[in-house]
Amino acid sequence: MHAYRSHTCAALNAANVGQNVRLSGWVHRVRDHGGILFIDLRDHYGITQVLVDPDSPAFSAVEKVRAEWCIRIDGLVKARDASLVNPKLATGEIEVFVQDIEVLGAAAELPLQVFGEQEYPEETRLRYRYLDLRREDMQRKMTLRSDVVASIRQRMWGKGFREYQTPIITSSSPEGARDFLIPSRLHPGKFYALPQAPQQFKQLLMVSGFDKYFQIAPCFRDEDPRADRSPTDFYQLDMEMSFVTQKDVFDTIQPVLSGLFEEFGGGRKVDTEWPQISYKDAALWYGSDKPDLRNPIKMQVVSEHFAGSGFAVFAKLLEQDGTQIRAIPAPTGGSRKFCDRMNVWAQKEGLPGMGYIFWRTGDNGEMEAAGPLAKNIGPERTEAIRLQLGLGLGDAAFFLGGKPAVFEKIAGKARNEIGNELGLTEKDRFAFAWIVDFPLYQQDAETGAYEFEHNPFSMPQGGLEALNGDPLAVRGYQYDLACNGYELVSGAIRNHQPEIMFKAFEIAGYGPDEVRRRFGGMVNAFTYGAPPHGGCAAGIDRIVMLLADEQNIREVILFPMNQRAEDVMMGAPNEPTNEQLRELRLRVLPPEA
Amino acid sequence: MHAYRSHTCAALNAANVGQNVRLSGWVHRVRDHGGILFIDLRDHYGITQVLVDPDSPAFSAVEKVRAEWCIRIDGLVKARDASLVNPKLATGEIEVFVQDIEVLGAAAELPLQVFGEQEYPEETRLRYRYLDLRREDMQRKMTLRSDVVASIRQRMWGKGFREYQTPIITSSSPEGARDFLIPSRLHPGKFYALPQAPQQFKQLLMVSGFDKYFQIAPCFRDEDPRADRSPTDFYQLDMEMSFVTQKDVFDTIQPVLSGLFEEFGGGRKVDTEWPQISYKDAALWYGSDKPDLRNPIKMQVVSEHFAGSGFAVFAKLLEQDGTQIRAIPAPTGGSRKFCDRMNVWAQKEGLPGMGYIFWRTGDNGEMEAAGPLAKNIGPERTEAIRLQLGLGLGDAAFFLGGKPAVFEKIAGKARNEIGNELGLTEKDRFAFAWIVDFPLYQQDAETGAYEFEHNPFSMPQGGLEALNGDPLAVRGYQYDLACNGYELVSGAIRNHQPEIMFKAFEIAGYGPDEVRRRFGGMVNAFTYGAPPHGGCAAGIDRIVMLLADEQNIREVILFPMNQRAEDVMMGAPNEPTNEQLRELRLRVLPPEA
Repeated sequence: MHAYRSHTCAALNAANVGQNVRLSGWVHRVRDHGGILFIDLRDHYGITQVLVDPDSPAFSAVEKVRAEWCIRIDGLVKARDASLVNPKLATGEIEVFVQDIEVLGAAAELPLQVFGEQEYPEETRLRYRYLDLRREDMQRKMTLRSDVVASIRQRMWGKGFREYQTPIITSSSPEGARDFLIPSRLHPGKFYALPQAPQQFKQLLMVSGFDKYFQIAPCFRDEDPRADRSPTDFYQLDMEMSFVTQKDVFDTIQPVLSGLFEEFGGGRKVDTEWPQISYKDAALWYGSDKPDLRNPIKMQVVSEHFAGSGFAVFAKLLEQDGTQIRAIPAPTGGSRKFCDRMNVWAQKEGLPGMGYIFWRTGDNGEMEAAGPLAKNIGPERTEAIRLQLGLGLGDAAFFLGGKPAVFEKIAGKARNEIGNELGLTEKDRFAFAWIVDFPLYQQDAETGAYEFEHNPFSMPQGGLEALNGDPLAVRGYQYDLACNGYELVSGAIRNHQPEIMFKAFEIAGYGPDEVRRRFGGMVNAFTYGAPPHGGCAAGIDRIVMLLADEQNIREVILFPMNQRAEDVMMGAPNEPTNEQLRELRLRVLPPEA
Repeated sequence: MHAYRSHTCAALNAANVGQNVRLSGWVHRVRDHGGILFIDLRDHYGITQVLVDPDSPAFSAVEKVRAEWCIRIDGLVKARDASLVNPKLATGEIEVFVQDIEVLGAAAELPLQVFGEQEYPEETRLRYRYLDLRREDMQRKMTLRSDVVASIRQRMWGKGFREYQTPIITSSSPEGARDFLIPSRLHPGKFYALPQAPQQFKQLLMVSGFDKYFQIAPCFRDEDPRADRSPTDFYQLDMEMSFVTQKDVFDTIQPVLSGLFEEFGGGRKVDTEWPQISYKDAALWYGSDKPDLRNPIKMQVVSEHFAGSGFAVFAKLLEQDGTQIRAIPAPTGGSRKFCDRMNVWAQKEGLPGMGYIFWRTGDNGEMEAAGPLAKNIGPERTEAIRLQLGLGLGDAAFFLGGKPAVFEKIAGKARNEIGNELGLTEKDRFAFAWIVDFPLYQQDAETGAYEFEHNPFSMPQGGLEALNGDPLAVRGYQYDLACNGYELVSGAIRNHQPEIMFKAFEIAGYGPDEVRRRFGGMVNAFTYGAPPHGGCAAGIDRIVMLLADEQNIREVILFPMNQRAEDVMMGAPNEPTNEQLRELRLRVLPPEA
């Protein structure tokens, strides 16, 4: 017989009754029923009930084992009494009578129980991650992650993509976030950097003629702590294709992701229609470039109904340039109680309040509009608003005004709140939308300088000609995929023509030398016959979080850093030896320096 | 029609004749045949011949294109004359008459030609890697690597393994090679490190109950330059299993690797028998712990035939403790010319020479032994040697003597040389052998201190009891897989019991505190119910090198560092900004410091 097991702890059933078997695993829990000891023996695959009575030669040894000891037992499989069969357990038809036991690994007193649902501080869970990971829920999430990544790979291969590994030790390229640096020992004073993403390398692969690339790629950013992201690194499905348009990228990645969400969504509905919404419309309708489309609410501009109206706050506001009034329709929200509650919410969010109108049955039995705004603007304007928004009895609408750039974000938040509060936002559904036509530039409000809005490597729609016009009017072939309010994917058709690239950077204030200094490898490559290309990157951690219904990224990572970017289990970061510093020719300066 | 292509450059054949098609790709070469321009248009998938005559509206535009320009053409597919069909080309039945052309990416003068076989200095190839990678041979090797990795994943999944990603930013653990360090910005003065291998994490995964782990894992070592290895990082197939013996690991990994070599070996023979050879026997028989078993030569101890013999050099040598004489049989090597050539080789390698005997037909028509040694020791001893080695007419034997530890390595080298020179070493074959029973310790010749021979985490055969005896007699459950003279895999059954582990480290001079300081995460984990476990790691780069028949690791890596650990294309490493250094609270010291 094998030294450790003839079967896993999920394998035995009625067909094995009468067999002598060997099992190994962990003591999930021990119970003493009238002098007979019952052990739930657990391994990665399942649980088997084993028991020992005082007549067994193993009894005294079994008596000593405690929770989470790792043991090996030999025993005889017996059928359970019909009344004791546990249909929830794969091995619920049988139990194993222990004849021999070997302790493979004893356990000290546990700082964290594996059995049961007890909660522990995150610090404890991370310090004893190997115990935390034994818990059923963590085993499930980590195998989910593994299976999701495996499925992505198979789906990408099926689409004719190959996975290529790009360098992890590379050069610092100051774009976006901070790089992690690595001092070079062979070239003291010089540093490598960990890649924030394989962006330049995947574009170089296209210039190298590889046509279809993907990678489950680790990405590294030295981030300031924030609860919902890793302070050090994350994984993305990174992909790139040559000779493609935006539509080709969408047509490639949509079936990969929808298939994935179907496979692992646990029966939740996966939208098959993925609308394409312009960045501008998304801001208007949803107050976000990553809208949650499970929420049916769509905002509208209702300025005309307030211009010159009796509601002085809005009427005056509209006299200023660039202002608007927008309505958030709230179907079924037509009660003063609900409207007041939302008003209080708005005040908590720092707004003076949120104007509203709701439609109820009046004393005369007919529908009437209620709320302070309705009184101020009068019945005609109120009715026009109702008709525009398509609302009726029992519904409400909320209003926000000002410069869109100022109130859009909070309007989007209000839309989410209203959708959730009224139960309009469907649960158990994955709703996707491509957000397209991102502006290439934004303007710094103070300096007036143009900055890249998103990704400096995107091809401007209209090419070089467009760049000679108003920078703020330039849209990029640049897109995000939103899912349930999260940005799941981001990508672009790249700017592969050096002259357009230099011009695009010039607008953002980077001269040719600066561009060559920062992105020299790629810019040089583009002068040797670069193909049109584009692609995207999808966040693996985010996908797994959505599938696992988790808000905390550390719930879907095996050995995550804590929020102070420390690994308390392995003791990272730690102090280097003098010898290490000497070899790198580095000195650590005191805090005052 | 699609903006860039209706077909790839490998897709068109006789069935497409008469169709209007669109192709995109690179100008592989242009030829002018009597005023008609022929372009070999190349993409990742293949080559299509396109042509334009002076009547085409596209003629003047096509005239301008040069090698490696990226272009899009529209044209009509025509059948080639039967005499012009090229059966070597997938598209050899047809050619495309160009009606329209668009330059997608022009190319400056090329520092490196893609067409043809011209050789370039490695520095040029690395600086313009995106051109170098367009070459057919590089495309083939990189797709081979990608396909090998994909196949490994599928094979491991098929064996019930899941892939788990372990941290890339972790703590420094001074074992073996140098770590790459990463200064922490949030904790100035402290450093993270890149993992030399996921060794501790994969063992922690076993303690966490995951049972079967694998990973295509990047490993990082700050190595001094050497031609045949990457100075920064490499990839390994890393795997680990719980509740297993050494045999289980072998039975798991052998079919994965043999299947892989069958799949990608290009018809080369893949041995199905993988012998298990003890470290001691490997040293004796092959002078190496990574023997090339394609070479049938097996060395033997022949001391008894020289002890007290007339060959004073060996006879005297044998009077010293711990000395031996070993023979390298050389079937078919029985000529003075060959033996003298090997003797010269030995002198070049720094030996005083290599004694030999060879068997030829004497003047009397009978077999006679020749060579100076034979004369010195006389016919009886010579014949005894011949019988022991199983040699005959036309064969030879070479002899080396001294302390085995001193001459084994050169003996192994001589064995290789003899095997190659005599054509005994089979080409087109992959020969594997498990090398087992590695000693756990070696002894420093000067200090007498015991050091770990290989891997400090291996379980000693015989457990705690064995550690209480002679350290040099302790063997580990520790193994390598040799293939054609290379170490392809290395692994062990781990030491999962804290008391055995502390004892093992104590022998090597590490007290408990030191062990806890270096490997605290793992040692702590072992006190909470650790399962027996073991595994191995296989070098991906090495596997691909063997399959691609390449000696240089940079031939199987997309964007490798040069031998000075520089990426000359991306400019890594480079100088950090003052701001970056300030944030990390680091100062670079001058060279004198």
